[in-house]
Amino acid sequence: MHVAETTIQVRYAETDQMGVVYHANYLVWMELGRTKLIEDLGFVYAQIEKGGILSPVIDLNIQYKTPVRYGENALVKTWVEEYDGLRITYAYEIYNGQNQLAIIGQSKHVCVKKDSFRPISIKRMFPEWHIAYEKVKKQK
Amino acid sequence: MHVAETTIQVRYAETDQMGVVYHANYLVWMELGRTKLIEDLGFVYAQIEKGGILSPVIDLNIQYKTPVRYGENALVKTWVEEYDGLRITYAYEIYNGQNQLAIIGQSKHVCVKKDSFRPISIKRMFPEWHIAYEKVKKQK
Amino acid sequence: MHVAETTIQVRYAETDQMGVVYHANYLVWMELGRTKLIEDLGFVYAQIEKGGILSPVIDLNIQYKTPVRYGENALVKTWVEEYDGLRITYAYEIYNGQNQLAIIGQSKHVCVKKDSFRPISIKRMFPEWHIAYEKVKKQK
Amino acid sequence: MHVAETTIQVRYAETDQMGVVYHANYLVWMELGRTKLIEDLGFVYAQIEKGGILSPVIDLNIQYKTPVRYGENALVKTWVEEYDGLRITYAYEIYNGQNQLAIIGQSKHVCVKKDSFRPISIKRMFPEWHIAYEKVKKQK
Repeated sequence: MHVAETTIQVRYAETDQMGVVYHANYLVWMELGRTKLIEDLGFVYAQIEKGGILSPVIDLNIQYKTPVRYGENALVKTWVEEYDGLRITYAYEIYNGQNQLAIIGQSKHVCVKKDSFRPISIKRMFPEWHIAYEKVKKQK
Repeated sequence: MHVAETTIQVRYAETDQMGVVYHANYLVWMELGRTKLIEDLGFVYAQIEKGGILSPVIDLNIQYKTPVRYGENALVKTWVEEYDGLRITYAYEIYNGQNQLAIIGQSKHVCVKKDSFRPISIKRMFPEWHIAYEKVKKQK
Repeated sequence: MHVAETTIQVRYAETDQMGVVYHANYLVWMELGRTKLIEDLGFVYAQIEKGGILSPVIDLNIQYKTPVRYGENALVKTWVEEYDGLRITYAYEIYNGQNQLAIIGQSKHVCVKKDSFRPISIKRMFPEWHIAYEKVKKQK
Repeated sequence: MHVAETTIQVRYAETDQMGVVYHANYLVWMELGRTKLIEDLGFVYAQIEKGGILSPVIDLNIQYKTPVRYGENALVKTWVEEYDGLRITYAYEIYNGQNQLAIIGQSKHVCVKKDSFRPISIKRMFPEWHIAYEKVKKQK
């Protein structure tokens, strides 16, 4: 199993009047975590889209344990929790500046054609990705 | 059970290069749904915060069924799924401009003191809210 | 001269840890102001884009007079300050919940083809818009 | 004159359905540019706020030259254009992934007390900052 690590400098714009990071912004960081994981595997997500394929989220869950604050760097850990050739579930842990576990999350994705939003088989259309995901996914 | 309804004009800023609403932005709409529900019950969330109490999300899950697009109005339906005097779980359905169910979601909240982020009892600190939530929560 | 008016319910997500609306978010409200003005003239911006034309901002200036806060409704006033068949300058005033002038802004736009970002003549490609803009623009 | 440089990985969330970075998001990058400049001078913006002082924008102008796209890294150059002991004007240039000048901007700031939003003298309250800003500001 490969765990990608990416460090995020908290942006002022990401805070809200609670004085902490607004809860929706962690989804953006989770996306940066996926991007880093894909990069670690030797691929580039932007290239996929140029081929007319998108990879939307179909299912998401997050537990908020403790806040992250402006002035801190957060650490996002990302790995492939499940993969079956069609759907990928990424899992995430986000740590705040005191190295406390702030967020636990999972997001499930499919690949679809940009013009129709119809799902495609990752295994058939991107055989190299398929092999890479099979190799790094969490072993049960 | 009371279901609050609020209509959202999709903002250009809410789209991404997929040509649909970016997945994190539905969390903002869910918040507008909660605000409307609280308003329907005769309360104002902004008042609570002026009293030094915040109501952060501690758990969130969303299923993305179909996209919502710029140029459409979305409809957010919000109700109280569970409430026990300490934690509230709101449930949401978001419909796109063709009246298709686009998003199903749930968010669980506590109330905390702004300075310490320590949880407080809604039942004890806001007895009027407690009565209202007990009355409108989903009956099992 | 026609002045479009649109009311904005401040969103929690739009605040930052200063306890006021984050300064970049007024640009989103200005866009809602333009949308309303275009609608008042009998057109729909989303339709333009379906025809492969975009209308990006090329120049923007904003003066921040006083903050807008969560719990308030803001009022955005929008009009056509200048128009020459090729470029449109919109002007904006945003009022906070105490009816104080919070923001003064201007944004200049062109129309471009989506695939090339090459500018087009509004006068030639959208003669009906041209007539409408000539009619409502500020008289000097 | 000191020019701070900071590299920004474009986020998917920052794009809109034009397929480029949404125009309001450059304001967030300009803030990251300011943060880097302040850091280069040996200070930490987050510390200022802990002392009850905020530094809101009072005036902003931006020229949009060419778009920045997802998959690119942008470069933000930031320097002190003007400073008089009370007001600071930062200037910015943002370059896209092809090293083209995408954005030119300026933002003017004051320092205010968090509770009253009353302006304070930077020269008097933060003499060390004052000396540093005098030293690095653009010479006329």
